[in-house]
Amino acid sequence: MPTIEYGPPLSLADARRIVNAAEFEAEKQGWAMVIAVFDSTGHLVVLNKMDHAQYGSIELAQAKARTATHFKRATKLFEDAIAQGGLSLRLLSAPDFCLFEGGLPLWRDDKLVGAIGVSGASSNEDGIIAAAGARALQG
Amino acid sequence: MPTIEYGPPLSLADARRIVNAAEFEAEKQGWAMVIAVFDSTGHLVVLNKMDHAQYGSIELAQAKARTATHFKRATKLFEDAIAQGGLSLRLLSAPDFCLFEGGLPLWRDDKLVGAIGVSGASSNEDGIIAAAGARALQG
Amino acid sequence: MPTIEYGPPLSLADARRIVNAAEFEAEKQGWAMVIAVFDSTGHLVVLNKMDHAQYGSIELAQAKARTATHFKRATKLFEDAIAQGGLSLRLLSAPDFCLFEGGLPLWRDDKLVGAIGVSGASSNEDGIIAAAGARALQG
Amino acid sequence: MPTIEYGPPLSLADARRIVNAAEFEAEKQGWAMVIAVFDSTGHLVVLNKMDHAQYGSIELAQAKARTATHFKRATKLFEDAIAQGGLSLRLLSAPDFCLFEGGLPLWRDDKLVGAIGVSGASSNEDGIIAAAGARALQG
Repeated sequence: MPTIEYGPPLSLADARRIVNAAEFEAEKQGWAMVIAVFDSTGHLVVLNKMDHAQYGSIELAQAKARTATHFKRATKLFEDAIAQGGLSLRLLSAPDFCLFEGGLPLWRDDKLVGAIGVSGASSNEDGIIAAAGARALQG
Repeated sequence: MPTIEYGPPLSLADARRIVNAAEFEAEKQGWAMVIAVFDSTGHLVVLNKMDHAQYGSIELAQAKARTATHFKRATKLFEDAIAQGGLSLRLLSAPDFCLFEGGLPLWRDDKLVGAIGVSGASSNEDGIIAAAGARALQG
Repeated sequence: MPTIEYGPPLSLADARRIVNAAEFEAEKQGWAMVIAVFDSTGHLVVLNKMDHAQYGSIELAQAKARTATHFKRATKLFEDAIAQGGLSLRLLSAPDFCLFEGGLPLWRDDKLVGAIGVSGASSNEDGIIAAAGARALQG
Repeated sequence: MPTIEYGPPLSLADARRIVNAAEFEAEKQGWAMVIAVFDSTGHLVVLNKMDHAQYGSIELAQAKARTATHFKRATKLFEDAIAQGGLSLRLLSAPDFCLFEGGLPLWRDDKLVGAIGVSGASSNEDGIIAAAGARALQG
């Protein structure tokens, strides 16, 4: 597998477009979410907490986006690994992994330019909203 | 499921009444507990450590109340999830979850106005005392 | 002096309006800022990092908004106190104070409903941008 | 100077009496305070946050009571040292000192049995309320 490269960081304008698209979908579903976008340097660019979103999601949304940036993959892959048990449980020992669905890398020209992290509903629902955000970058 | 809203924060008078009710039950049972009440802003309002309660429970009682506030549900739900193993073990990766029974949200007019966290005996017994406290808000 | 009360938390819509006004001013000045808005519960509602803002400002902007919420006053008051030296230096011992200008409480009906924190330029310039954001709530 | 000895820890009943006395005085003054009592083992026994007390005082009240317990003296002595400057400024390098007035050791039979920490107004006013609490143990 070729090395996945980090591309130029997302701009604030990009990040805002992604967050807005995710939020639009969350409102349609009636879910109170926290949505965070990191850039390819591993730093937070935009965070929005929707009204009445649970406080714990402020950290979790960032943790998901950070994990997707730091390990260059969707956090659902780690969730699936945990579900298998056995050796994969060693993932629980890593201090900066968030093992919940809802974190997705963001791609442009086959390079990782950032990540979105969503938290507030079930992790499956968080993943739906993260995907809605990610699509805004492709569109 | 409709979004659970955070309501106005519990007053000190409310919190004290809740702690007193929990403590009354703990004394009846002969259990040395730490009892903490948070308000809907996620901040500690009252903490009481009963004589000879274990020191570690000072942090645990607060962690349970904080988790119940931050994630709007009883910590027993997380304890039950862990007991099932498999995918639920991902909960162990979240830095700010306390996965022990004994944390309960407090409700008024269908809004979350705070939470009680109890630690000191078995988590099942902690839950009994937390419930005794929570009933004082309804009564 | 009467007690300053915490009012109902800012909505996401309010917070976004405040951040946008601050950002508009920052762009006019040509400063790359991080702008954070907290609500009256002491939680982050919106954070925006402008392109090329220094990474360290992501934490500092939040620390300024948190200090303004937690201590109900502009962080410039703490900065001024440090400048006087002497007794005021005790402020350096408090773990959760950010002693840089750029954090302002946000008011509505004489109650504290949130705070804005800005970081990225000199602390004096941070304060100018924070004030531009705060005015958007009054307007 | 003879060694100051740690005596038997304050009971919950003692701590509550002390907090109530402090709170009674704070209400008379119209100040919204956080009041914490530690016992002679260095652990929190009771904390009460009065309505609308600033959030930052939850940690500060505990930090003052902890410092008074850990270093067996009123935190005002440290505040006075800071005011003198010079060598005393090394106190700022100690991670667990709170250098604000408002922390007082509590004595019984010439032994330290606990401490009270108060935060919420000016440090001078915090000290007045802490003294009101401490008197309740002597009375």
